[in-house]
Parts: sequence; C-alpha cells; structure tokens
Amino acid sequence: MSDDLKIDGARLWGSLMDMAKIGATDKGGCNRQALTDLDKEGRDLFVSWAKAAGCSIKVDEVGNIFARLEGSDPNAEPIAMGSHLDTQATGGKFDGVYGVLAGLEVVRTLVDAKAEFVNPLEVAVWTNEEGCRFAPAMLGSGVMSGVYSLDQAYSTKDKEGLRLGDELERIGYRGDVPASPRPYAAMLEAHIEQGPILEAEETTIGVVSGIQGAHWFDLKVMGESAHAGPTPMAMRKDPWRAVAPIVSQVLALADAHAPWGRATIGDVSAQPGARNTVPHTLYLSIDIRHPDDEVLAAMEAEMRRIIETACAEADVRFALDEVWHMAPTAFAPHLVDTIEEAARALGYSNMRLVSGAGHDSLHTAQFAPTAMIFVPCADGLSHNELESAEPADLEAGANVLLRTVMQLAGVRK
Amino acid sequence: MSDDLKIDGARLWGSLMDMAKIGATDKGGCNRQALTDLDKEGRDLFVSWAKAAGCSIKVDEVGNIFARLEGSDPNAEPIAMGSHLDTQATGGKFDGVYGVLAGLEVVRTLVDAKAEFVNPLEVAVWTNEEGCRFAPAMLGSGVMSGVYSLDQAYSTKDKEGLRLGDELERIGYRGDVPASPRPYAAMLEAHIEQGPILEAEETTIGVVSGIQGAHWFDLKVMGESAHAGPTPMAMRKDPWRAVAPIVSQVLALADAHAPWGRATIGDVSAQPGARNTVPHTLYLSIDIRHPDDEVLAAMEAEMRRIIETACAEADVRFALDEVWHMAPTAFAPHLVDTIEEAARALGYSNMRLVSGAGHDSLHTAQFAPTAMIFVPCADGLSHNELESAEPADLEAGANVLLRTVMQLAGVRK
Repeated sequence: MSDDLKIDGARLWGSLMDMAKIGATDKGGCNRQALTDLDKEGRDLFVSWAKAAGCSIKVDEVGNIFARLEGSDPNAEPIAMGSHLDTQATGGKFDGVYGVLAGLEVVRTLVDAKAEFVNPLEVAVWTNEEGCRFAPAMLGSGVMSGVYSLDQAYSTKDKEGLRLGDELERIGYRGDVPASPRPYAAMLEAHIEQGPILEAEETTIGVVSGIQGAHWFDLKVMGESAHAGPTPMAMRKDPWRAVAPIVSQVLALADAHAPWGRATIGDVSAQPGARNTVPHTLYLSIDIRHPDDEVLAAMEAEMRRIIETACAEADVRFALDEVWHMAPTAFAPHLVDTIEEAARALGYSNMRLVSGAGHDSLHTAQFAPTAMIFVPCADGLSHNELESAEPADLEAGANVLLRTVMQLAGVRK
Repeated sequence: MSDDLKIDGARLWGSLMDMAKIGATDKGGCNRQALTDLDKEGRDLFVSWAKAAGCSIKVDEVGNIFARLEGSDPNAEPIAMGSHLDTQATGGKFDGVYGVLAGLEVVRTLVDAKAEFVNPLEVAVWTNEEGCRFAPAMLGSGVMSGVYSLDQAYSTKDKEGLRLGDELERIGYRGDVPASPRPYAAMLEAHIEQGPILEAEETTIGVVSGIQGAHWFDLKVMGESAHAGPTPMAMRKDPWRAVAPIVSQVLALADAHAPWGRATIGDVSAQPGARNTVPHTLYLSIDIRHPDDEVLAAMEAEMRRIIETACAEADVRFALDEVWHMAPTAFAPHLVDTIEEAARALGYSNMRLVSGAGHDSLHTAQFAPTAMIFVPCADGLSHNELESAEPADLEAGANVLLRTVMQLAGVRK
C-alpha cells in the first residue's frame, strides 16, 4: 500500500463549491431539497463526475445512486462510501455532500494513481436523508435496509401533495435495481460533526464508534388550578412543585453520564396558562440519549423514578408517554479501529466520538459493517445556512477515508 | 341597640335565588354581564326591591346605583354597603350579588323593625366589577375613586365594539349624579371568600383586614439553542438550568412568608419549542402577592436576587419586566375591629383574613373607611357556575353586616 497516496484537497474543495452552486442561497447556504429540479441537477452533476472517473452508474427503485469502480475481483464484496446530496430548506454546503464527494475523491485519487485493488468500490448517494420535504428522514437507506417498504416510500407526500414515487419518476431517478441490502464488505460515511466537540477539543478527526440511542417522552403533570390570590401555598396542588425538581434532576442525570449522556426539555406549556391562575397541568417534552443501550435503559429507569418520586412528594399526578425510541447503533469495531489507525498513521489528531444525530449509517449498519468519520464544523452549526468547515479539515477527513479504503480493498500500487 | 334584631335568612336566600334566575345557566350558574339586557333586568329588580323597602334611588354618571334610606340626621355621613350585580360569562349566583342583597336585607330588617338610627344608609351597586365584557375590572368604583376617568370608562368597548357609554345609555342607567367620591362614614362589602380558607378552617366569618398587593412579572431567560443529540451537557447554555431552581426558590419564598405570601408561575413557554432542540429562551409569568407592602417589597427583592444568582450560575441571560403592580390595601382598622366584635357578639366562629382577589372595596378604600366580611364558599370555587355557599353562612354574614351597621349608624329601637 502506497503511503504517499493523498487526496487533492483543492479538487475536493472545488467539487464541494461547484455542487454548492446548485440551490445556493443568499446567506451562503443551500436549498436543494430531495427530488426537486435542483436535486436532479446535483445528482446529474455527481453522475457526470463519477462517469468521468470511470465509474458505472446504477440507480435503485427508491432513487439511491451507486457509482461503481471495479477492482480486480468482480465477485468480491464492494467497499462502499457515501452519504446524501439533498439539503434542508435552509441547509449548508457540507452536510451529506461532503461524504459523497469525499468518496468520489477517493475514487478519483485511486484512478489517477492507477492503483490496483481487489474489491469493487461504490460511492452511494442516498435518497431523501433530510426528511424536510418528504417524511421520514433517511428514507432511501431505510427502504434499502428494510425499515420502510417501497410502497410506503412511494406514497409519502410533500406539503403540496406530490408523491415521492411520482417525483422520483419525474426527475428520472426511479431506477430498476431492487432497493434491497447490497453485499457491502464495508460502508464508510464521512460527515461534518454537526456538533461542537472536535472544534472545542481542537481535534481534526472524529472516529465515530456509533450513533446515540434516543427516547422521546411526553410528560403531563396534573395538579389543580387555583386563583393566584386567595389560595394559600399550602392548600395548592401546583404541578411546578414536581416539575421544577424533575427538570433539575433529569438534567443532572445526563450530567452523571457525561460525556455521552444527554437530556433535553425542548418544549413546555401550561394549562390554562393564565398569569393569575395556578396551572392545573404542565406539559413537557423529554429527550434522553446515550450510545450504550444498557446505560440508556438505566437512564430511563432513573428518569421514571425521579418523576414518580417528585410527583408523589408534590401530591400531583402524571402521565408519561413514550413517543419515539431509537436504539443506539454500534458501528463495526474492526472498521472503527481501521479508521483510527488511518488517522494516527496520517498524523491527524483524533478522538473517538458518538454521533448525536441520525445518519444513513444508522440504516446501513443493519445490513453491512458500517462506520463514520467526522470532521469539525464551525460552532457546531448545521441545518443552517451558516454551516462552515475548513478546507484542511475536509481534506484530512478524505485522506482518512482514502487510507481506510486502501486498507480494506487491498490497494497496491 | 337591640341585640335581638336579626336577618330573615329565608328572605335573603329567596332574594338571591330570584336574582339568580336572571341570566341563569344550565349548569346552575349565572351569565349576567355588565350593561346587557340581563344586567338591566337585574338592576331593575334590585331598584324595585329597594324602593319597596323605602329607599330613594340615585344613579351616577357611570351607572353606579345608590339606594338610600334616610336616618334621623340627613347631614350625617352615610353608612354604605354593597357590591356588584354583574357576573362572569360562566359566573355563579353569589359573587357580588350577595354583598348587594345582604345590604338590602339590612335595610329591610331595620325598616321592618321600625328601628331609629342617625346616619343615612346607602346600598351601592357598582358598575362592571367583573371586567369580562368591558376591561378593566372594578370600573364603576374605579371611576368614582378617580382611578379611571369618565371618558376612559365611556369609551371602553366590548368585543363587538359597543361602547360602555352607549350601553349605559341604552339600558337606561347613565345617571346624572357626578361619579365622584361620596362622603361615606363607612363602606362595608360582604362577599363570598372566593378561596378555600374559611371552609378548611370550618370558620363562618372572615374578618377581612385588607387586600393583598400583587406584582406581575414577565421573565425571559436566554441561553443558546443546540441540537439535543450532538451537544454535550457541559457545552450547553440551557435556560432550564436557571429556570428550574428559580421556580423552586420563588415558590419556597412564598412558603417562607406563609400564610399570606403567594407565588404563582401561571404561564410558561419555550422557543423554538422543538423536542430535539435545547430551547434558546424560556418565558415565564411570575405573580407574587402579600398584604404587607414592606414584606411584598422584600419578597420582590429576594425574587430578583434568586433570578440573578440562578442565571449567573447557569451562565444564561435574563430580562425581567414588571407588567402590573397593585399595592396592598389595608382596610380601616376601626371597621375591621367593629366587624370582629359583631361576629364575636353573635357567636359566629371568625378569623382575620386578607383578600387575595381584588374587589370594589380596593377602590372605595381610596376615599372612605372600608372593610369587608367574607363567608365560606364550597371548595373555594368562584368565577365558576358551580360556585356555591350555604344559606346559614350567608345569613350569618348578613347578621354581622347588620350588627356592624347598627353600631356605626347609632341604631336604637
């Protein structure tokens, strides 16, 4: 394996900036939502680049694109890279796009170097990762992994009532390859972190060991309404008497599971919500996360104990509904190790991370060994037109991807 | 003074039930909002009863009614009783009406007994106490005491755009007596408690020493929004880290000033209010009350210290706006004592209370010695069609009113 094979950072940056022109917004972001004319334009540009690099193109029934470069053994399992090209309505230039174009850049680099390797390489572009035009998010990889059916995907409608299946057809990306698990030896997704850790730690490479599990709850705490004037404190059943300690203790519970525990009270409201009336009911959303399923289960149990105890002490009732549950995803240990070794060998500062956000890798991990590579983004901002990443960091991440692929695909020069 | 002069409880109850027919609701309450046809009907019924009892009727420019019974000295300052006849849209049978009809019953009792007394007696009916059709509340007594101007009152509109002045004219209750302070020697308002204390203490008479002062605040606590997944707890600026202790400590502050301190967080909301985003801002209403101005000021200072400390510790910013401020009202001590003596002499269990809700007495106390008499109501419910009070308690309150008036007006038989 040739240690001196390196990504052309300027070419990678150029590709990113060219792609960013498609759907560019005034504020420097991108609005290239799934299966719009702009998404077609972005897909076409990628396909033209991949073909120019010597790839064959396949498109599956749900519009996932696979740009394939054959190795010496056409029967070997492919080494896959990739991510998505669609963006949020007020999205940035890097979320998703980076993983696709870093994969393309790996292919270009190997082709330019006339490198020899065993396994086929594939750069995958997953359909509708963002979920902002068509819900749910991560749909293309979800159909492929069997989480969603093809019919379900096709019949999903946008706000104007347009069906995903029709829109796929309209932009010419309803393919004929079955949307079923591909026999990947590995799936590698490079991505900006979308969080603040790498920047704060002044670290270039995040070696991602998995995706956090999350539980979403709706908590309703019920006391009794009372006039703010005549009713003495001791005669009230004020739900705040439970809610204030619940909030403090649930946040402290996440603190106790640092650095990966998370707890978020994103929304709250009161009924009747009048300033001179003790509310009879407070509504809270609770989001708890942890990458380890056992720890997450323990956090949930402790959260339930906190709520029960606080409500009993305050003599108020509660109802706790689980709204959504995403199990933690652990990435393939041998791939995580290979990525870490690549970062070390290349001399990049690196640390192990867990992804707090969902990615297509969550789905591909269901059928193929999967791992991710993170690079820093400014202020942890993402899903935001101000999303920003440094060319040197993007180049470093692509170099780690290149070296990992070389390792896995048996690259020889 | 004749100790055996007593209220006819059955007649008082009959008057209350007759008045309750006007605007009666299916659920047993009353909807007789200010200056509607039903309010006119209620006023007319009261006027007919007062005339039948030998009173002369005067109406002032803002529609306040004064039913006057002359004593032996026409130049002596009147002893006034009364309250209001208007109700909430989903109001009860007793709020306000009781104070008016208890006053009428005192007049009837003295007339029937051919009692001799010195001061003129007046039963006052204040216009638009409830404030649900025309804001603000306590308007008639407010104009009379100079808190609001007559023009302000006339130009107040209901939801349909009808002016209070026009509605007064329409129902025939725009009088010609100047709406200015009347030279009352005393103003006595009997009322249901609208709170749970007397019932809980199994006490018949509340000797009301004043009305609580209240401060209303809007608190805005500002942190930084962050994705619920990728952002570690230690890197967040979550406004809940300040708000949870603020709520606990502000409620504890009211506890520390038991039994009269009050703190209510009636409303709360989060921005952006998404379950998977740390809110950048939390909004809370805070209502603090105490009947002693110095204690209320100390509570406010302590509340400000709590907020400053919690926000500094959580590294978040805040803005605290005072929305409204009602100073505590202390009733005339000699009247409070006289009411207490009357309750004792009549053998009724009694306790001193402070009113948590506002009443017309808040305004009359600006120009005349004022005090209130409370009787229990079921479950502290008021502004509710289920509002309920016991005939025996209502009779007891009217007897305390009668004896107090007899004392003040120099009744001799």
